[in-house]
Amino acid sequence: MTHPFQLPSRHPLLIVISGPSGVGKDSVLNEMQARGANIHFVVTATDRPMRPGEVDGKDYFFITSDEFAEMIEQDELLEYANVYGDYKGIPKQQVRQAMASGKDVVMRIDVQGAATIKSMYPEALLIFLTTETEEELTQRLIERKTDTGKGLKLRIATARKELQRLPEFDYCVVNADGALGQTVAAIQAIIDSEHMRVNPRNVTL
Amino acid sequence: MTHPFQLPSRHPLLIVISGPSGVGKDSVLNEMQARGANIHFVVTATDRPMRPGEVDGKDYFFITSDEFAEMIEQDELLEYANVYGDYKGIPKQQVRQAMASGKDVVMRIDVQGAATIKSMYPEALLIFLTTETEEELTQRLIERKTDTGKGLKLRIATARKELQRLPEFDYCVVNADGALGQTVAAIQAIIDSEHMRVNPRNVTL
Repeated sequence: MTHPFQLPSRHPLLIVISGPSGVGKDSVLNEMQARGANIHFVVTATDRPMRPGEVDGKDYFFITSDEFAEMIEQDELLEYANVYGDYKGIPKQQVRQAMASGKDVVMRIDVQGAATIKSMYPEALLIFLTTETEEELTQRLIERKTDTGKGLKLRIATARKELQRLPEFDYCVVNADGALGQTVAAIQAIIDSEHMRVNPRNVTL
Repeated sequence: MTHPFQLPSRHPLLIVISGPSGVGKDSVLNEMQARGANIHFVVTATDRPMRPGEVDGKDYFFITSDEFAEMIEQDELLEYANVYGDYKGIPKQQVRQAMASGKDVVMRIDVQGAATIKSMYPEALLIFLTTETEEELTQRLIERKTDTGKGLKLRIATARKELQRLPEFDYCVVNADGALGQTVAAIQAIIDSEHMRVNPRNVTL
């Protein structure tokens, strides 16, 4: 008895783009957004005050500390962290809605947060951005003028530690100097390929 | 204690392209070959006589039945089958050499043979070519003029059975009518993506 043939159904992916500080996560995300595939890019919620020029719902969702606390209590954050005194987190509801509409969801998270997501959602797709070598990463951190308030030595030590966590990820993409287009094409190949898997990743939040 | 960071090393892939009769495996392989990526396309060995216009080592490796028997005994065939009275098989040595030189190896095998390869080499990469629907496949078999000596009804029944074996494969690629370029690009995305896996497939013959 044969059943009628059916193609595997399409599942939206929960995609985490991570990698050590200085590797260029923001540039990669911006370039992906500019190319405008059928992807929802997560907007992070934060309790820090809006700065001039920022747009609510675009740069961040600006909420009060009480609202943030409420989201933590209701388990309505996929992941959150206290970054230099300000809370930042990813609202589950936003991710749920995007996936329900059939869109892949992309979020940029630091290495530690990415590992947390993987432990809670093993079917999440984790992409690790890296430079070719450790020296190249150090060089980028040195050249980078924007400071985070932390000393260079500390940032280099942190980035080195983060590089060691590559084995916790699914894919490794080299973000070479001046090759942003190639990096984004590589990520797109991974996404396209994952949608052709016979046993697709299926994440339920 | 941190070790110096190293990118995952590159492993050549053992790629099996399969799918039901009539789906267009040959056209896809020919197009891939024309684009000439860094891939070794397996040349099958056979004991059938060379036909006019055929080239030894290109169309097939033409060997005697005794030589074929010897390869079976020495376990030097990755897979073999008796196809309408002629033996056809894939020499392991050829695949080993190509992989040793760092090349991915692509072979076109029928659905049953592909499943055999997977059972022996679970890390082989199996791509299933399919039409969107069963009806489309039937239509292609009807329109196809080249006969294999078997009746149309039997070929349709066989192809339908083969479609059911999709779950045994890793990836599913739709080879739509008139979209050969798209099919080949999809396969290329899978290959590129697999080379970015943190835990690469590692086949040893």
